[in-house]
Amino acid sequence: MGSKQLISELKPGDRVDSYFSVNYRKPVTEYKYGFMFEFRAADKSGQITIKYWGGQDADSVQKLFASFDREQVVKVKGEAQEYKGQIDISISEKNGGSLVRVAEGEYDLNQLIKSYENIEEMKATFKKLVSEVRDSSLRELLDAFFEDEQFMNAFSDAPASITLHSAAVGGLIHHTINVAEICVRIAELHPELDKDLVLTGALLHDIGKVQSFKVTSNISQTEHGNLLGHIILGDQELMARIAKIEDFPELAASKLRHILLSHHGKKEWGSPVEPMFPEALAVHEADDIDAKLDNMITKREDAVTEDDWIWDARHNRLIYLK
Amino acid sequence: MGSKQLISELKPGDRVDSYFSVNYRKPVTEYKYGFMFEFRAADKSGQITIKYWGGQDADSVQKLFASFDREQVVKVKGEAQEYKGQIDISISEKNGGSLVRVAEGEYDLNQLIKSYENIEEMKATFKKLVSEVRDSSLRELLDAFFEDEQFMNAFSDAPASITLHSAAVGGLIHHTINVAEICVRIAELHPELDKDLVLTGALLHDIGKVQSFKVTSNISQTEHGNLLGHIILGDQELMARIAKIEDFPELAASKLRHILLSHHGKKEWGSPVEPMFPEALAVHEADDIDAKLDNMITKREDAVTEDDWIWDARHNRLIYLK
Amino acid sequence: MGSKQLISELKPGDRVDSYFSVNYRKPVTEYKYGFMFEFRAADKSGQITIKYWGGQDADSVQKLFASFDREQVVKVKGEAQEYKGQIDISISEKNGGSLVRVAEGEYDLNQLIKSYENIEEMKATFKKLVSEVRDSSLRELLDAFFEDEQFMNAFSDAPASITLHSAAVGGLIHHTINVAEICVRIAELHPELDKDLVLTGALLHDIGKVQSFKVTSNISQTEHGNLLGHIILGDQELMARIAKIEDFPELAASKLRHILLSHHGKKEWGSPVEPMFPEALAVHEADDIDAKLDNMITKREDAVTEDDWIWDARHNRLIYLK
Amino acid sequence: MGSKQLISELKPGDRVDSYFSVNYRKPVTEYKYGFMFEFRAADKSGQITIKYWGGQDADSVQKLFASFDREQVVKVKGEAQEYKGQIDISISEKNGGSLVRVAEGEYDLNQLIKSYENIEEMKATFKKLVSEVRDSSLRELLDAFFEDEQFMNAFSDAPASITLHSAAVGGLIHHTINVAEICVRIAELHPELDKDLVLTGALLHDIGKVQSFKVTSNISQTEHGNLLGHIILGDQELMARIAKIEDFPELAASKLRHILLSHHGKKEWGSPVEPMFPEALAVHEADDIDAKLDNMITKREDAVTEDDWIWDARHNRLIYLK
Amino acid sequence: MGSKQLISELKPGDRVDSYFSVNYRKPVTEYKYGFMFEFRAADKSGQITIKYWGGQDADSVQKLFASFDREQVVKVKGEAQEYKGQIDISISEKNGGSLVRVAEGEYDLNQLIKSYENIEEMKATFKKLVSEVRDSSLRELLDAFFEDEQFMNAFSDAPASITLHSAAVGGLIHHTINVAEICVRIAELHPELDKDLVLTGALLHDIGKVQSFKVTSNISQTEHGNLLGHIILGDQELMARIAKIEDFPELAASKLRHILLSHHGKKEWGSPVEPMFPEALAVHEADDIDAKLDNMITKREDAVTEDDWIWDARHNRLIYLK
Amino acid sequence: MGSKQLISELKPGDRVDSYFSVNYRKPVTEYKYGFMFEFRAADKSGQITIKYWGGQDADSVQKLFASFDREQVVKVKGEAQEYKGQIDISISEKNGGSLVRVAEGEYDLNQLIKSYENIEEMKATFKKLVSEVRDSSLRELLDAFFEDEQFMNAFSDAPASITLHSAAVGGLIHHTINVAEICVRIAELHPELDKDLVLTGALLHDIGKVQSFKVTSNISQTEHGNLLGHIILGDQELMARIAKIEDFPELAASKLRHILLSHHGKKEWGSPVEPMFPEALAVHEADDIDAKLDNMITKREDAVTEDDWIWDARHNRLIYLK
Repeated sequence: MGSKQLISELKPGDRVDSYFSVNYRKPVTEYKYGFMFEFRAADKSGQITIKYWGGQDADSVQKLFASFDREQVVKVKGEAQEYKGQIDISISEKNGGSLVRVAEGEYDLNQLIKSYENIEEMKATFKKLVSEVRDSSLRELLDAFFEDEQFMNAFSDAPASITLHSAAVGGLIHHTINVAEICVRIAELHPELDKDLVLTGALLHDIGKVQSFKVTSNISQTEHGNLLGHIILGDQELMARIAKIEDFPELAASKLRHILLSHHGKKEWGSPVEPMFPEALAVHEADDIDAKLDNMITKREDAVTEDDWIWDARHNRLIYLK
Repeated sequence: MGSKQLISELKPGDRVDSYFSVNYRKPVTEYKYGFMFEFRAADKSGQITIKYWGGQDADSVQKLFASFDREQVVKVKGEAQEYKGQIDISISEKNGGSLVRVAEGEYDLNQLIKSYENIEEMKATFKKLVSEVRDSSLRELLDAFFEDEQFMNAFSDAPASITLHSAAVGGLIHHTINVAEICVRIAELHPELDKDLVLTGALLHDIGKVQSFKVTSNISQTEHGNLLGHIILGDQELMARIAKIEDFPELAASKLRHILLSHHGKKEWGSPVEPMFPEALAVHEADDIDAKLDNMITKREDAVTEDDWIWDARHNRLIYLK
Repeated sequence: MGSKQLISELKPGDRVDSYFSVNYRKPVTEYKYGFMFEFRAADKSGQITIKYWGGQDADSVQKLFASFDREQVVKVKGEAQEYKGQIDISISEKNGGSLVRVAEGEYDLNQLIKSYENIEEMKATFKKLVSEVRDSSLRELLDAFFEDEQFMNAFSDAPASITLHSAAVGGLIHHTINVAEICVRIAELHPELDKDLVLTGALLHDIGKVQSFKVTSNISQTEHGNLLGHIILGDQELMARIAKIEDFPELAASKLRHILLSHHGKKEWGSPVEPMFPEALAVHEADDIDAKLDNMITKREDAVTEDDWIWDARHNRLIYLK
Repeated sequence: MGSKQLISELKPGDRVDSYFSVNYRKPVTEYKYGFMFEFRAADKSGQITIKYWGGQDADSVQKLFASFDREQVVKVKGEAQEYKGQIDISISEKNGGSLVRVAEGEYDLNQLIKSYENIEEMKATFKKLVSEVRDSSLRELLDAFFEDEQFMNAFSDAPASITLHSAAVGGLIHHTINVAEICVRIAELHPELDKDLVLTGALLHDIGKVQSFKVTSNISQTEHGNLLGHIILGDQELMARIAKIEDFPELAASKLRHILLSHHGKKEWGSPVEPMFPEALAVHEADDIDAKLDNMITKREDAVTEDDWIWDARHNRLIYLK
Repeated sequence: MGSKQLISELKPGDRVDSYFSVNYRKPVTEYKYGFMFEFRAADKSGQITIKYWGGQDADSVQKLFASFDREQVVKVKGEAQEYKGQIDISISEKNGGSLVRVAEGEYDLNQLIKSYENIEEMKATFKKLVSEVRDSSLRELLDAFFEDEQFMNAFSDAPASITLHSAAVGGLIHHTINVAEICVRIAELHPELDKDLVLTGALLHDIGKVQSFKVTSNISQTEHGNLLGHIILGDQELMARIAKIEDFPELAASKLRHILLSHHGKKEWGSPVEPMFPEALAVHEADDIDAKLDNMITKREDAVTEDDWIWDARHNRLIYLK
Repeated sequence: MGSKQLISELKPGDRVDSYFSVNYRKPVTEYKYGFMFEFRAADKSGQITIKYWGGQDADSVQKLFASFDREQVVKVKGEAQEYKGQIDISISEKNGGSLVRVAEGEYDLNQLIKSYENIEEMKATFKKLVSEVRDSSLRELLDAFFEDEQFMNAFSDAPASITLHSAAVGGLIHHTINVAEICVRIAELHPELDKDLVLTGALLHDIGKVQSFKVTSNISQTEHGNLLGHIILGDQELMARIAKIEDFPELAASKLRHILLSHHGKKEWGSPVEPMFPEALAVHEADDIDAKLDNMITKREDAVTEDDWIWDARHNRLIYLK
């Protein structure tokens, strides 16, 4: 396989000779000296545009274009260059470039997508949390999800978000454990809460993400993920599993659905309803706290500078590094 | 039945002798001279609190309390009075009051809930709009809803909203027709739109309201209506009907679900996703325009004053009456 | 002392014969039949306006007015009545009313202000949390506060807020413990955090409230509480105690001050700076979650209705009671 | 005239030999090797900065600078290059560049500004809409505008907006027709509306745009357009025409002025007053729906990608292309 | 005339025998014992609803109703009472009530509307400010307004706002002087400003209020004031006066119009355009500072309480009184 | 010293031979041909990234890196080039580059940081404003600050903000004088204000900036400036000086602290409390008006274009230049 050149480290003028995962392509078009096409590619460090500049023979360019597709992996020889303030890769006869599809096994998937290493360990922790639920109906429901090996594997392999920092295989189970652990603590501090309900809600709150992300040689949002959103997909999945359980109590079903639907906390953050009882509020708050802390901690850990501050453009704030 | 005293017209000191629909009750409690309870009641003109002041015999008060329930109708004799700036009704031995449950047939339902008169006519108009859809899958889907007589009747009897002004039987089909008609016009002006998709989306956009309102002797929001919202209920209903149609095209299904989910237009208005293609945007805009116009027109029509202006407190604006 | 009539239970027409704490008074003025004055009074259940209607003898009214002051307790005989939609108490010769100051010991303070019962137990829990801090400077600082018996008593007797629901003696230590416990859990889940710093920040975050509330026979905000706010008062207190510790590390001092100043999380919520490192973010989030949950749980617990819903006007939401 | 190189298609390194419209210039300044100036230029595809790098002879550079002006057309020979992430054109002796003003007739205006092709047809449709107004005063007013050939021509040649996508000659009449057609439909569905007033308001709502845009060899906002805005300019135009009509009813005048002033719907969108009667609301809503739909449809039609999605940065949303 | 009972001082049960200005009326309707009507009335201290309860003779009630109109003054005998948390006045045979129109001269206008006492003095100050403008065109324009005696009188008699606190005759000139004085100071501190332009803008900024308020026996907003707003009315007035001045410089005209139109500073505060040059910004800021300070100072001066704080509900803030 | 090449004027390809102030550095890292490091540098015209590309000898690169530090000045020979849409400076053997620390005295500080020229004159004006305060306690407090020569010098040398436009030595005293002058005028127009309090508040409002900025060979925000903010630092400074004055009246102390803390006017703008009395409001408004006007005037003065407009991206508005 050879070593991998990471997208985030390419500089203008670098010779490129490495493999990348294909996101999507734009069709072949004509240019001054012949025919060209471009596509968007990714590895675990970021995304980049790759341009193939072919010659006058339209057929051969079209054939090359047809030889690979989205979500597949290609080996690229060419040159990194700057265009409109971005780095991209140019492949041309002049720079000795080439482009060829690479079969599975001929690349290291860990170079293309990030992954948590302790997934098995996290599965065990997760099962332990499930076992803390005492109510038999809620336990039956949880088992319908997490004792279903196929679902459990998909759940454990899913990322928690599409942005690069947390877009790691195993991110979903990692985040879900944290939310559930905080909920357990909150339920101990506030004995008025129905602990079984809070914990079940926490364990299920993001199950829609299993369907809303697709992990191939890269991580992307599915069509349903975009058009319907993981909240709706989670509710749909929940209804389907509940429907198969005999005599599942209607009140618990309504409350769980409400917890899933309201877990973003506010309508403007994508929940069609807002938390209407304390157990729903607790799941929302625990989700919120874990996501925000993770984000800021990651930024502090990843910073490389002698300065004591970095600017977090997305949240419009300084982060102090000392 | 006798004539009906309307809640909105009661003034302090009025003798009350009329029937009302029961919304919900508060339990029996003790007071200085014995035992009392209160409940919330409604008719087509508004809501009111009714207080029963009983004597020292707890049992008989409890018995009276147990003799009627939510959504039933009671005949009330008593006196209107003011308490903390509101009008309520007081029933006591002193004012010769009494309270007794009234059987169906002994009251005029039209005095308790408003209703559109031309429902049959609206059904015909609605069917004609359905027949304008050419795509066979979409037609099959529409027929699955609206040729199902039970659903069609429930749909035609549903209100469009819970607030008093538009809380009328038939309000949902009335509003849906308007939205569909505007969509048809928009699709003619913008031929790039998929007219069949827009029209089908318009006809189905509010079907969740059939489940989110309950019409008995009064109109109320159901538990699912509050906890899940009519948008989610509509999506669930849509999925269920689509599942029963063989080979319903997946793309059309996704798009229709998106239209239903996004029809409030913005997350802060309760849509978990926002319109991502023009057909979804068109349905949202047509819904919005009809709802807002209806609201302002009603206020202008209902105003009774010599002044040229009324203040619309809910929307924080003046309305000009000339 | 006799039994206490609670303000929240007075109804128009009730004879009043009970004691109340004085909030503030308005000066004596003339009216049709003589001289009158009014004052605002409180007990543990709420606040009420009390009006004294005297006769033509200005001197005697003025003398009565001068016989009591803010924060003292008065015994009131009179009648509850409604005025502009509110209940108030009227004292006049006609209704056999009277008004007289009551000495300490002649009333039950627990009827005037709420109090947690397990304050000693909470103190022990609190000390245990303090002992979890390993860093010697931070421990020295914590001890400077909480081993100072006078401060510890004031801290344990302080309320967490001025609004009636949580305005209880002991509310501050109760809330602080919860925030600290959640922070401990978060620090375990996120080992990148400096646990000692988070925990110290949590234990100190609200110390400014000791100065911003005044507990006499009622609970009120102090002048400094209003003009400067508890965040600034807490920072000032922190600086003062740090100044007395030899060689307290400057970095830790800056970080702790930042945690206190930023613990409301956003400028619009009253923090002059927003959290700039994860430990500050954790304290803010834990504070937020405890305050919001407490509020919603209290409302669910206190609701008295047969309906399944109550309307929470302050947060503009329904709360589900089932 | 030769074929036109479009600004949007220029790439770094391209030889440029084409004509452009001048937006505005910056004065001559000195640089390392002599004197230079730059100006902003446009064609129907976008805008670009053009830099002229002259020699040591200040006079000749100044003379060249003085030889052309804003809104005129120049023929440019030079080279496209990248500077700070943007493409610009560099003209220098070294790259064989030249710059010369081009007389009218020597360029194709359709390459410089976009235009609707069916303007005559739209005029006819427009006149038909005018003829639907029955009220004689309103008709007289409409005729005062649209039977005035000079105004009608200016109106028909005006664009609807300054941004490139809809900045086409004929855009204003196109948009106005759509708004009027939707208003007609709405008035049919809501017979309580004064149809003549709604339709007249719709036809006149954007007349201020005739004065707020200037179409020469490019499209620009006029000084009045920026300083006063098309809403105020429209109101001013309306007042002027009404003043010339004898006995124009005062109430209709006030209502029409209000419709024009309020047609952006909200103060934050630039209307000094918000719709205060349903006819004004209808015009606003119809305007809104047409503008938003047009925008999204255009983006869907113009997208060139194999992906199913494009990102609409301005509205911060994904658009689905399938 | 007798002494005036002020609306703000009426208490339930008070005998009323005084005169009030009529705002608007509601038509005659039937009630249990005959025919009644109500109207809204005002004096310098506030507004109140007055109800006339007549007998069975519809004609005589209608005749009484027809005997007075809006903006006229009536003498009322009756009783103050509370209804739904508000005080109103009830006139009936039972309480010996009567209602009769009062001719001009038979009441003290100063009891009905507030007025500044030093209007002549303010006029002199104002003229002095006008004379500080050196530019001849701007001076000519100012003279066109303020040497026109009719306009100057209307301007000096106009209030600055419709709410009760500043709704005083002379309020407009008072406020305008303050804004102009602050502008003069700012222009001295920032010599880059065109002082003549700033000062002229300040003196003219609120001239639209002359048309937007009507002062009769009460102060009300005119129809144009509501439908068009004082900003548009001011711009219209400005254009009209400028049109009559020969060779008034176009640039100055555009800038002045912009200053008037933008003086509310932000679109959401009602300006259709926002300040685009520093002179416009200065006028907006000076207007803002005077209005806000006036408001808070008035509240501090008017407060009557022994407490050190009052709650300013409109601005949602405490005001400190010490 | 030689002439200074300004950062804002560097173009790609320019030879660089000048001195710059060092902001902060990133550590040495390896690259294709050896070891490199980069640092951020500044002069009075802006900031730039400088990259040193060394050879294979890690030690010598590390030694060079260690030879200079933040806030020192370096002499740079190299070449300006573009990278990702920004200009930076590259130093390498290939381009004959070099990097060497420069001792104080060998560069012109006025080329590195901007400065007001009339600081002495401003000091005199400032003292005169101080002398207008009549209240002896307030005067004593002002003297404690401004008769303390060390403080007065630091105050006079401080900038008013960190952004480049107003980041000039002397900016703080310049701004403070303007705010105080406007306050004096306001206090004359509103005699209800306590002029001494307003003026003292104005003179002290920004004293926290002395500690929140650091002026060395460049201007930067201090750690306390970022973590605590100048509002808190000012309050802390104020408390410290007040503590040293015997019998300083408590009420005045509280009010002054409130004025400092509230001078940003709204919580979302960084004030932990909002103005609660008119004197505090006046200081806030005067601060606001001076800052906003300064900003817009500077932009108008600095604009270099033949166009009549510039776009102010930060405030999202056009500025008119005529």
